[in-house]
Amino acid sequence: MAHYRKGADAERELIHMLFCKGFSVVRVAGSGVTSLPCPDCIALSKKKKMAFECKAWSGNYLNLPRQQMEEQVSWADTAGIEMYVAWKIPRQSWRFIEPKHFRKNPKNYAISLKEALSKGVLFSVLIGEQEQLKQKKA
Amino acid sequence: MAHYRKGADAERELIHMLFCKGFSVVRVAGSGVTSLPCPDCIALSKKKKMAFECKAWSGNYLNLPRQQMEEQVSWADTAGIEMYVAWKIPRQSWRFIEPKHFRKNPKNYAISLKEALSKGVLFSVLIGEQEQLKQKKA
Repeated sequence: MAHYRKGADAERELIHMLFCKGFSVVRVAGSGVTSLPCPDCIALSKKKKMAFECKAWSGNYLNLPRQQMEEQVSWADTAGIEMYVAWKIPRQSWRFIEPKHFRKNPKNYAISLKEALSKGVLFSVLIGEQEQLKQKKA
Repeated sequence: MAHYRKGADAERELIHMLFCKGFSVVRVAGSGVTSLPCPDCIALSKKKKMAFECKAWSGNYLNLPRQQMEEQVSWADTAGIEMYVAWKIPRQSWRFIEPKHFRKNPKNYAISLKEALSKGVLFSVLIGEQEQLKQKKA
């Protein structure tokens, strides 16, 4: 229950961020109702149209069940819009990660926290307010 | 309650019709949750992107509160997608009506059943499967 609430709170936070930046945003009603695959939320503007799967997860890896990820990717492809996994990383900013950055395992798609921090884009980059800075080499 | 259920059933029916025609579709979660204006459902394809306000209403007129209609139109305009009022007319087919066909009154937007039947488009026309037939003159 606490886990569900954390996810729902993250979703609402993201929706609010996008709304404040001028997007038309919707939270998608539980897929259980229609049994059709669909994302958690959608943000649309004349310039940019995006679907999100939101995750609030503290850990060194983020895993998504294989079927769920593939249905989401297919949904966005049919819709003709971009799809991101939005990871609210504790004590860090949100990262928006394209599905192609996940590693395909037999049962899931996975990305490490380190990869997410380097390959995922920041909110300001996502919405086109600034360009992604290159990672400094160690 | 029965009225609410009729509306929810109509929404689900429309979502299913659109899904069967290859659209990526979502039912929008209750606007009460986010307090942001938004449509009932959204259907997206590479070619066509649409938002719907669904109404299952038996009567000679369909009225929408002025604020609700104006928020929906503004939402769709910001999103850069088309918006239709989808009227499930008892013992008739669905009609998809552009907001411009409604008459603006001090408190609401209204359309008569007769106007809806002539100005609203059929589902097959909406999704581009056939062109609207011209109304025969009496």
